[in-house]
Amino acid sequence: MPKKLFEVDLNKTMDQQTTPGHNRWHPDIPAVFSVDPGETFRMECLDWTDGQISNNDDPSDIKHVNLDRVHVLSGPVHVNGVEPGDLLVVDILDIGTFHSHEWGFNGIFAKENGGSFLVDHYPEAAKSIWDFEGIYATSRHVPNVKFAGIIHPGLIGVAPSQDMLNEWNRREKELVDTNPDRVPPLANLPTEHSAVLGNLKGEEFDRVAAEGARTVPPRENGGNCDIKNLSKGSRVYFPVFVDGAKLSVGDLHFSQGDGEITFCGGIEMPGWIDLQVHVIKNGMEKHRIQRNPAFKPGPVMPHYNEFLVFEGVSVNEFSGGQTYLDANVAYRNACLNAIEFLKTLGYTGEQAYMLLGTAPVQGTVAGVVDIPNACCTLALPKDIFYQNILPELD
Amino acid sequence: MPKKLFEVDLNKTMDQQTTPGHNRWHPDIPAVFSVDPGETFRMECLDWTDGQISNNDDPSDIKHVNLDRVHVLSGPVHVNGVEPGDLLVVDILDIGTFHSHEWGFNGIFAKENGGSFLVDHYPEAAKSIWDFEGIYATSRHVPNVKFAGIIHPGLIGVAPSQDMLNEWNRREKELVDTNPDRVPPLANLPTEHSAVLGNLKGEEFDRVAAEGARTVPPRENGGNCDIKNLSKGSRVYFPVFVDGAKLSVGDLHFSQGDGEITFCGGIEMPGWIDLQVHVIKNGMEKHRIQRNPAFKPGPVMPHYNEFLVFEGVSVNEFSGGQTYLDANVAYRNACLNAIEFLKTLGYTGEQAYMLLGTAPVQGTVAGVVDIPNACCTLALPKDIFYQNILPELD
Amino acid sequence: MPKKLFEVDLNKTMDQQTTPGHNRWHPDIPAVFSVDPGETFRMECLDWTDGQISNNDDPSDIKHVNLDRVHVLSGPVHVNGVEPGDLLVVDILDIGTFHSHEWGFNGIFAKENGGSFLVDHYPEAAKSIWDFEGIYATSRHVPNVKFAGIIHPGLIGVAPSQDMLNEWNRREKELVDTNPDRVPPLANLPTEHSAVLGNLKGEEFDRVAAEGARTVPPRENGGNCDIKNLSKGSRVYFPVFVDGAKLSVGDLHFSQGDGEITFCGGIEMPGWIDLQVHVIKNGMEKHRIQRNPAFKPGPVMPHYNEFLVFEGVSVNEFSGGQTYLDANVAYRNACLNAIEFLKTLGYTGEQAYMLLGTAPVQGTVAGVVDIPNACCTLALPKDIFYQNILPELD
Amino acid sequence: MPKKLFEVDLNKTMDQQTTPGHNRWHPDIPAVFSVDPGETFRMECLDWTDGQISNNDDPSDIKHVNLDRVHVLSGPVHVNGVEPGDLLVVDILDIGTFHSHEWGFNGIFAKENGGSFLVDHYPEAAKSIWDFEGIYATSRHVPNVKFAGIIHPGLIGVAPSQDMLNEWNRREKELVDTNPDRVPPLANLPTEHSAVLGNLKGEEFDRVAAEGARTVPPRENGGNCDIKNLSKGSRVYFPVFVDGAKLSVGDLHFSQGDGEITFCGGIEMPGWIDLQVHVIKNGMEKHRIQRNPAFKPGPVMPHYNEFLVFEGVSVNEFSGGQTYLDANVAYRNACLNAIEFLKTLGYTGEQAYMLLGTAPVQGTVAGVVDIPNACCTLALPKDIFYQNILPELD
Repeated sequence: MPKKLFEVDLNKTMDQQTTPGHNRWHPDIPAVFSVDPGETFRMECLDWTDGQISNNDDPSDIKHVNLDRVHVLSGPVHVNGVEPGDLLVVDILDIGTFHSHEWGFNGIFAKENGGSFLVDHYPEAAKSIWDFEGIYATSRHVPNVKFAGIIHPGLIGVAPSQDMLNEWNRREKELVDTNPDRVPPLANLPTEHSAVLGNLKGEEFDRVAAEGARTVPPRENGGNCDIKNLSKGSRVYFPVFVDGAKLSVGDLHFSQGDGEITFCGGIEMPGWIDLQVHVIKNGMEKHRIQRNPAFKPGPVMPHYNEFLVFEGVSVNEFSGGQTYLDANVAYRNACLNAIEFLKTLGYTGEQAYMLLGTAPVQGTVAGVVDIPNACCTLALPKDIFYQNILPELD
Repeated sequence: MPKKLFEVDLNKTMDQQTTPGHNRWHPDIPAVFSVDPGETFRMECLDWTDGQISNNDDPSDIKHVNLDRVHVLSGPVHVNGVEPGDLLVVDILDIGTFHSHEWGFNGIFAKENGGSFLVDHYPEAAKSIWDFEGIYATSRHVPNVKFAGIIHPGLIGVAPSQDMLNEWNRREKELVDTNPDRVPPLANLPTEHSAVLGNLKGEEFDRVAAEGARTVPPRENGGNCDIKNLSKGSRVYFPVFVDGAKLSVGDLHFSQGDGEITFCGGIEMPGWIDLQVHVIKNGMEKHRIQRNPAFKPGPVMPHYNEFLVFEGVSVNEFSGGQTYLDANVAYRNACLNAIEFLKTLGYTGEQAYMLLGTAPVQGTVAGVVDIPNACCTLALPKDIFYQNILPELD
Repeated sequence: MPKKLFEVDLNKTMDQQTTPGHNRWHPDIPAVFSVDPGETFRMECLDWTDGQISNNDDPSDIKHVNLDRVHVLSGPVHVNGVEPGDLLVVDILDIGTFHSHEWGFNGIFAKENGGSFLVDHYPEAAKSIWDFEGIYATSRHVPNVKFAGIIHPGLIGVAPSQDMLNEWNRREKELVDTNPDRVPPLANLPTEHSAVLGNLKGEEFDRVAAEGARTVPPRENGGNCDIKNLSKGSRVYFPVFVDGAKLSVGDLHFSQGDGEITFCGGIEMPGWIDLQVHVIKNGMEKHRIQRNPAFKPGPVMPHYNEFLVFEGVSVNEFSGGQTYLDANVAYRNACLNAIEFLKTLGYTGEQAYMLLGTAPVQGTVAGVVDIPNACCTLALPKDIFYQNILPELD
Repeated sequence: MPKKLFEVDLNKTMDQQTTPGHNRWHPDIPAVFSVDPGETFRMECLDWTDGQISNNDDPSDIKHVNLDRVHVLSGPVHVNGVEPGDLLVVDILDIGTFHSHEWGFNGIFAKENGGSFLVDHYPEAAKSIWDFEGIYATSRHVPNVKFAGIIHPGLIGVAPSQDMLNEWNRREKELVDTNPDRVPPLANLPTEHSAVLGNLKGEEFDRVAAEGARTVPPRENGGNCDIKNLSKGSRVYFPVFVDGAKLSVGDLHFSQGDGEITFCGGIEMPGWIDLQVHVIKNGMEKHRIQRNPAFKPGPVMPHYNEFLVFEGVSVNEFSGGQTYLDANVAYRNACLNAIEFLKTLGYTGEQAYMLLGTAPVQGTVAGVVDIPNACCTLALPKDIFYQNILPELD
């Protein structure tokens, strides 16, 4: 086992841990430890909500979740000798669950508190609990499916520079200002409420909390990309913006469908992740990996090869209005088409929706030039179902 | 070989063929032949531009292409006994090239004549010619890559009902009316210019041409979905809107990257496709496959398992402005990030762009709920390159 | 289409073709044409029996097949500048069926005339006809299965040197001499009967026929390896033993299970194969590919990922006698175990046996050191069956 | 974590554990605990040699290993309600390493003490130590390779009935009697020396030890099949021969090449395995899974898709003598051909041999009917090497 360790106690919230992590992005959150290039270390993680969701049948906790608390992250880790302009190479060696906590949750956020991709179709909160049996997940709330998850960190990223942070805050505020009262909001701006910032205290805490970017969106530093294929064995190339890179990780998913369309989220869980780091000096210029991370997926993802694929095009499903190549509308329609089909198998709309949020469904940008309709597809793996789902010929 | 055949002569344009096909969607374009459920037939196809593009190094033909001519389709085929409300099940048994024409083309359309996904970065016309060697493609215009294509029809669909057609024309006109002078246009409305409508003549031709929807966008009838995984061995479930379904096909691609981002297009070619049809009576209601086709991909697609994946988020790359979960911007940035990287391998921007349009790159909707940033990824298969493209560690 | 062509007329036997091929290995069979390194050419092939098997329900033709006629090969092709000690690199660019002949056959040879892997269990001749529908095969003789074949040449090889040929004849005669009257025979020795030797005539024909090695076994020159994964897109590295290498090919299979256990054989068919050749000078020493060819499989084989796997160990199934690590007995028992299982699905033993000979089943050497039992496995792809074959839990 | 647990202390040998396991097959070895169908439980396992091999560079421990001690197994587990004639369905939910022991070993046994598949080529003992980094293994003794293992139990099986045991002892003694002084021996017969039999003591120990079959060979009960694809997520169907089935497991491999050709073995390690059991009453007759287990492989094995494949045919490599379709000789030649090639990359013969024993190489029975030569292949995954191993064209 790696010697360096970020440890968590599942019975405590992140701010109460011996070494607390953080839930904001800021260059001045102190590192919890440092490592040398080539070194391996383990990060234990709480679930992204900091333990707000319980293993029961009542979605109230999803409905009333405190979203200012997310995502509680483990880190940051300082990598010795790494400087801005370098690429930090992070190998995800393994990911696992805690034996004392072999379940996870998925939920649809309520429109008033977070919302989701299909918020206008499914505005109410819902929850499903998923039990882990080794590599497989099943749910008492979504029956007759069982699948091997593609386990991954929903969120992994490095610290922004102060300039980059300022730019994030500028552009996100500008967006919110276009419609500040929107429900759900257009973006989450910095707030001291529920901020966790490692061991920072007093004025320094206040300053960093006031500026610290929320962890919800993916950005130039990686962050909450929710890429389901960033699984065991992947190698990630991060552009570096601060000395030591300051790597953090959290939001582990036992499984997730492309798009994480229910928002809360994939199958969310606490767990651990083993990482090894290397560096490519001046790699940002050398390989022009500058604006976002790039990665090589790992070799042990479950591979399915029979799918039923649903198409969607970019016509508004309520108004019948034509959009211009809007891939979001196209993917939304592909999801809605899949849900309609899943209803014929006996699922409720909410169950089907949560299945698309949790199972390893593939969301593809099929065509984005055929004016005026984008086409996106959602591929449902046949073998996750107990029954044969393919329509039979007459 | 199947007995029923739609035949083309590569030396003639579509309107000059013995049995001409069509390049508009309309329920009243007459079927070229009819088949029974269970029957197999072959459709020979011209390339989507009706032969406007030549195998040379000059992109003028791409620049000045007559876009009113696209897409020349083979069909329609009437399937006996199939009625609105049924599902038409179409098995793509095989697809191939003509031995006399073992090359295809890809192009970037000029901003003034079509444009493309990265039109503001690459406004000039460009062209690459791809040579076929059995299952592999190479190009003198994009060196040091070779790949097995995922051969597929960019366009396959059934005829709309008159009501559906009217709705298409309504909503697309509404969109165009919001900015009628935009370059490139927001949509292509019906036009008699360059219309090919089978054997229709005189007043009937004029009526159908005036109403006939353009074939460019994918719609409820399938059509130009440009789904690269709709390859050999796939089974497609089409909702049926008119008696006999009236199936048409064209726009064959030797290969294409997800998104078909260069617009012209994948590796475009004439060729043939063998189809078998079945029916599921009342299948639209039974399986709720109503608004778009669904399909099961075939088993012989080239499978790559090592990728370098580029991420993109939904911040405007020119203004730095924040969009709200815009997957198009996110995918555009993923493409641009891949192009920047490909430049470090010695490609020009245009070469890299055309490579993304032609090679079997995967475009994924990774996250579409993490406000305000969508995250999309573009996965580049490592093994299409002669050299090792993965960044080496220090 | 490639310019150089070995052409066949399906209505004529190999010796009656305008340019006849051959059915023996000998360095002095004249080349049919020569090509330069880098050149692409097409070889049309008759089926391995030279058209002896008919598309009907009567296995008499299998029972009485003239085995002195096999395998009729297309070639040899002389590759300019290639010498002994080089590696001849052969790219299998594509393989296909003739549109006028979209069916193939599989058979169990009778014990008295050829025999098969399970000869003591299935000593009688049997036949199944397989119909091709694009990439798929089905059979009226083996119902309720449909699969995409892994199309490949059962036989591809280069000419032996005279010394190598002498060695083959020596060692095979030695084996036959240990039990010359065995039924089926231990090996097939040279015979003039039914020999086809290109355009050789008179004394030269007699000399070459008397010495020419039979094509049945795989040997140092490649030859009848019956490797099902040597499919489209493969690259083969052949050691070269004579000037020009003298490449020949035949015995095309639409599909075959590992082991080709029925002997006659996979799904046997006439067809065409497009090849491109390159050379690595002194490659035999450089890469120590000296005793047999090596190859890189192609990327478009159907990929299955759910299997039911049967194990077999090396205990004689008749006597209960213990063998020492005998992989043949282990694989035979794995096959027999699979057949017993298939009978519970309603197949006869012969049908099940022919299914294992034709479908893309995988035969694996699992363990060959655990004295005294070898363990081999046979993996049956679940998705070739119409029904779910996995045993259900109570 | 499962509640039922077979626990091991890595600092003690199997007979010294609080609950000792066993290293012989016998129906009268008492169960360590019982479970109900549907129940999940964890088995911790020692390495197969009972800790005889150390993490150092000296192969003496391999050379002098006490082979009477192998394989120390965890179990047996009694499954309530399961009777002879049933199928015991065992789901391998997960497999893992101990964090305190993240390394494994591979060795070539000396000819005088065990031998191996290529014993006449490599008669001396050798050893390689493999370090685990999450899903990956590397070795200081076999440089420039890194691969994700296909983790699996080399040995999993149920208890034989007394009759079956008697039959095993009869047939194996018969074989040994044909050449009792052979080195290495033809089989290992029962011996009290180093026997571990759970808590049996006194006369009962003596009786069971005198009869207990050695665990080395795979047999009708499964046992030491060394099937590399029996990995995480697999479902095994075991025929049941005694009340409660009496399931045991051990010999965990981090990775192994097909054939386990070095004999010692794959990458051998202690670790844990989580199992869930179900039953199919009278399943042996119902599904005719009677003579050996059958299984469905799991979905998370690393999948490679580029290979360099070596062929071998059944001609004796020393004498040049022709064998009759001997798959062992064919596979041995394929292995030797691969080793010769690997030497051109800078490996010694022993390193290459140990690489074939440890890496996920595929061994295939290609053809076993083409008299007189069998053809077997060995496929080497390209991507486990740091360098590109494919021969370059001139």
